[in-house]
Amino acid sequence: VSVSAVIPAERPRIEFDTERRTPASQLRAMLESEELSFLMEAHDGLSARIAEVEGFEAIWASGFSMSTALGVRDSDEASWSQLLNVVECMRGAAEIPILVDGDAGYGNFNTARRFALKAERIGVGGVCFEDKLYPKMNSFVGDDHCLADVKKFCGKLSACKEGQENADFCVIARTEALIAGHGLDEALRRADAYREAGADAIFIHSRKRSAEEIEMFAREWGGRLPLVIAPTTYASTTPAETFRRSGISSVIWANQSMRAAVAAMRRVCRAIRSTESVIHADVELASLEEVFQLLEYDELKEAERRFAAV
Amino acid sequence: VSVSAVIPAERPRIEFDTERRTPASQLRAMLESEELSFLMEAHDGLSARIAEVEGFEAIWASGFSMSTALGVRDSDEASWSQLLNVVECMRGAAEIPILVDGDAGYGNFNTARRFALKAERIGVGGVCFEDKLYPKMNSFVGDDHCLADVKKFCGKLSACKEGQENADFCVIARTEALIAGHGLDEALRRADAYREAGADAIFIHSRKRSAEEIEMFAREWGGRLPLVIAPTTYASTTPAETFRRSGISSVIWANQSMRAAVAAMRRVCRAIRSTESVIHADVELASLEEVFQLLEYDELKEAERRFAAV
Amino acid sequence: VSVSAVIPAERPRIEFDTERRTPASQLRAMLESEELSFLMEAHDGLSARIAEVEGFEAIWASGFSMSTALGVRDSDEASWSQLLNVVECMRGAAEIPILVDGDAGYGNFNTARRFALKAERIGVGGVCFEDKLYPKMNSFVGDDHCLADVKKFCGKLSACKEGQENADFCVIARTEALIAGHGLDEALRRADAYREAGADAIFIHSRKRSAEEIEMFAREWGGRLPLVIAPTTYASTTPAETFRRSGISSVIWANQSMRAAVAAMRRVCRAIRSTESVIHADVELASLEEVFQLLEYDELKEAERRFAAV
Amino acid sequence: VSVSAVIPAERPRIEFDTERRTPASQLRAMLESEELSFLMEAHDGLSARIAEVEGFEAIWASGFSMSTALGVRDSDEASWSQLLNVVECMRGAAEIPILVDGDAGYGNFNTARRFALKAERIGVGGVCFEDKLYPKMNSFVGDDHCLADVKKFCGKLSACKEGQENADFCVIARTEALIAGHGLDEALRRADAYREAGADAIFIHSRKRSAEEIEMFAREWGGRLPLVIAPTTYASTTPAETFRRSGISSVIWANQSMRAAVAAMRRVCRAIRSTESVIHADVELASLEEVFQLLEYDELKEAERRFAAV
Repeated sequence: VSVSAVIPAERPRIEFDTERRTPASQLRAMLESEELSFLMEAHDGLSARIAEVEGFEAIWASGFSMSTALGVRDSDEASWSQLLNVVECMRGAAEIPILVDGDAGYGNFNTARRFALKAERIGVGGVCFEDKLYPKMNSFVGDDHCLADVKKFCGKLSACKEGQENADFCVIARTEALIAGHGLDEALRRADAYREAGADAIFIHSRKRSAEEIEMFAREWGGRLPLVIAPTTYASTTPAETFRRSGISSVIWANQSMRAAVAAMRRVCRAIRSTESVIHADVELASLEEVFQLLEYDELKEAERRFAAV
Repeated sequence: VSVSAVIPAERPRIEFDTERRTPASQLRAMLESEELSFLMEAHDGLSARIAEVEGFEAIWASGFSMSTALGVRDSDEASWSQLLNVVECMRGAAEIPILVDGDAGYGNFNTARRFALKAERIGVGGVCFEDKLYPKMNSFVGDDHCLADVKKFCGKLSACKEGQENADFCVIARTEALIAGHGLDEALRRADAYREAGADAIFIHSRKRSAEEIEMFAREWGGRLPLVIAPTTYASTTPAETFRRSGISSVIWANQSMRAAVAAMRRVCRAIRSTESVIHADVELASLEEVFQLLEYDELKEAERRFAAV
Repeated sequence: VSVSAVIPAERPRIEFDTERRTPASQLRAMLESEELSFLMEAHDGLSARIAEVEGFEAIWASGFSMSTALGVRDSDEASWSQLLNVVECMRGAAEIPILVDGDAGYGNFNTARRFALKAERIGVGGVCFEDKLYPKMNSFVGDDHCLADVKKFCGKLSACKEGQENADFCVIARTEALIAGHGLDEALRRADAYREAGADAIFIHSRKRSAEEIEMFAREWGGRLPLVIAPTTYASTTPAETFRRSGISSVIWANQSMRAAVAAMRRVCRAIRSTESVIHADVELASLEEVFQLLEYDELKEAERRFAAV
Repeated sequence: VSVSAVIPAERPRIEFDTERRTPASQLRAMLESEELSFLMEAHDGLSARIAEVEGFEAIWASGFSMSTALGVRDSDEASWSQLLNVVECMRGAAEIPILVDGDAGYGNFNTARRFALKAERIGVGGVCFEDKLYPKMNSFVGDDHCLADVKKFCGKLSACKEGQENADFCVIARTEALIAGHGLDEALRRADAYREAGADAIFIHSRKRSAEEIEMFAREWGGRLPLVIAPTTYASTTPAETFRRSGISSVIWANQSMRAAVAAMRRVCRAIRSTESVIHADVELASLEEVFQLLEYDELKEAERRFAAV
């Protein structure tokens, strides 16, 4: 062997898709599109993968659902870094873009902007903060929801926007003004302040049984920025056509996967416990084969053949 | 105010239950009891809580199910510390003892004994290692399951036993001899070697459609140590009475909660996606109120009254 | 039960030290002892091990130092779970008890009590909370230190005490009343309120150049509960004898290991960078052998002989 | 669309540096440059920041040093995810590119490629794997270093290269052939096989007291790929000029920051312990002010003015 051993480069050439769209650019395109889009809640890598396989455009990494899966309450009991660990699992399990629920931002403008940047760096498309105080309480619990000072919340949004690294990353502002009972005008005033502070979209939240106040908000808002909603309480009274007509950009199904899992796990546990047998529960269970397909065990077998055979 | 300010001690007295049994002593009692016990799989804090609420004696923190929930494959894709983070969530969400699936021990005797000690320290009742090689492949995938050298595996078990801090902590040895096709004699030989190395119970695994080889094993084994089984493939053909008659100590329902969740989440996602509505899915969903009850939101409200009122 | 059941039990017997004192009981004994004790700051597993090897009675898991080691600012930039991960490393690397700096408690009574319980469960001896607001700013930065409402802070302490599992676990209340410029009477009033709320010791903090106000506080306090101090600013003017005379229980060297590491790493980096050589830096470096001894590589070699030889 | 829609867009415009070079492209440029470059070891966010401030081109996230800081032994006692958490802290604290020590790849081709992709996704410039077996033992401990099978190790490298998302991400192959005593020819044979498998550079490791075998290797290698070295044992006998003359691309100072910290922390702890005072240790300590500057506390104060003032 000598210097002249100019062995020809037989090294494999790998093609990189330089046109590949980032999660942020995909999420932005979805928000800004004319079409109504649907995000499905996920609370772990598995539910993220299922949302993708079942055809949703994007994932809502719900604070409530992630907390529930972790076994804690939606009152900032999970730390922001525990939540980001969950989101990182989603990112590993699904290709569609993820919008992360950043709750009230975990303290102040600084914890919020740090969270947003970390979320961006692990490949999330965007983050959403709500105008509540930390520690927060779930929007469906009690009537005692203090809103954040508008200026402080705007500072939070601006800090996030200024800190992001890529132009497409989305910061969405969620106002709880309607839930806190402050009425339409306050909701509009807040939404517009958040827009001026740099928000890329407005998440207008309501827990009414009908979509009426959402429709009124959308009408007054007039498309200043894309609107996002989570019709947890009014979905069963409101067809998607209504959201389309109102010019809503995106609908978040905010907790259905988690609630389906809760109901199914309880049913199955109860049946197994009472009968000391799986016979009656079996029909409720995905087969092992289905789980293996969902997580692409075949890819591992194939890769083993290519990379591990001696 | 002076030194003589001998302010009387009005400090609250807190009663501590010094008789409180540790998770390890509970798990040990369950294993050594004459009664047949049932462990339900959990893969996160939520499913652990559900297993408890539905009345199971203990939780099986399944490597397969935890991996699936994390969105990765059951081939040591999750790190041992990621798995322990999940187990810590279970520990926070449920009071019943947890038996942790330690797979093949993550490398050698040293990674195994470190894992066992860490599991013990976060309050787990016991850990179970199987006589396979690292990285492992799920027992239901393929036919290519090499077993660990018996002496090496015994060294692993002894190292764990020597390293534990409390006498009650359980180290369970799982043999895959039947699954690897080595027959009954080899399974018995291995089980007995593991017993001599210090194992507190034997997990004898089979993936046959009937319980016959398990029954034969139990007969030959003759109660030298408690036996644990996971009848994933033979549960539907075998009533619990058979296990009682064979002197089995504990049955692990190894992955049913996860598989119930997979099936339900897919059904609900599909229904919502295709109808752009939750109307048809609603009947499948646990109510928000049920989720709040499961995780005791009332306790938080009550504690707020006591500790946060000014 | 068959014949084979007569196999004699040759299983190894392991002796467990049932008298072993828990970290909590060790820390409590230290706090309540007549002797002056010294806690050394640690910020990772390595510095914890060094504190132990160099003979300190206990470890102060400093929020400031841990944050600095993580590369973030002492303003609640690290999440509580990131900090507990660091503490868990300390727990694995050192046997002496650990007192964890819980800063302002990460939000409210609920985040504080959850943190305390989690710290207790990973084997920490006690936790210390300060009467500041979240997110906090390091006590040595700026003059803008708002104190928590006394009643709210007492609620936090009571919630922690009520939630702990073992009677010996210590909850220490740190008052920043002197640092915030509220004077001796307010400091005493707060300390006594914290005592009534259940605190096991008082950490009285000062950033004066002399110990005078600490001595006055101790005199007025009159031993109602053990006193803890961190003489970062007044240590160089005050001999330990002064603290003994004042009846101080424990002195925390709150950040010296970290600051020694910073200075040394900068010196060595600068020398190596400018000379493109380690020759001038070498004298500053611990040998590889010393590192191996510190972390007991020999134990691993010996264990390998016992558990891994075939 | 209503009247309110005419509100002019006063939203802030943020300029994004679309020419910003990624960490991967920076690391690649450094490796492929004609100039000799120097990487400084880091083991946490703080030491990473110090390496940057002191002017190094890049950071070596050393497995040995990170393990030591975590308080564990360099024998795969830390999990790969614990190590990546440390690396994420470095990434947050320093802008210069990071080369991550991936040890032996944590199991097989699959754990290695997963680690590489996760490292890439958190913004690391490249990863380095060595041709040893898992669990590994530190190269400076004992003489018992088995090498990985060449084909298997090549499979590992190819799997990583195929899985990376951006063309610039670097996968470096480290051969321990010289340390294992297999001689120059075997080292060259392995290095070339790794090159063909897709490695972007070769890390040729030696633990001799002189650089002779490294120089010979470099001569025979003839620049087929950039060469990286870590002259831990031969640095004090070899001027940087020698490395330049040999055409080495980059020198890794592999553990000096950590060893400087160990020595300093022990000295300071010992002095404080024996004198019950910081007076003699004070000269060794960085000031609080220096720590605040290092981590840019001023930026936080300034941001507070901009984003948190009401």
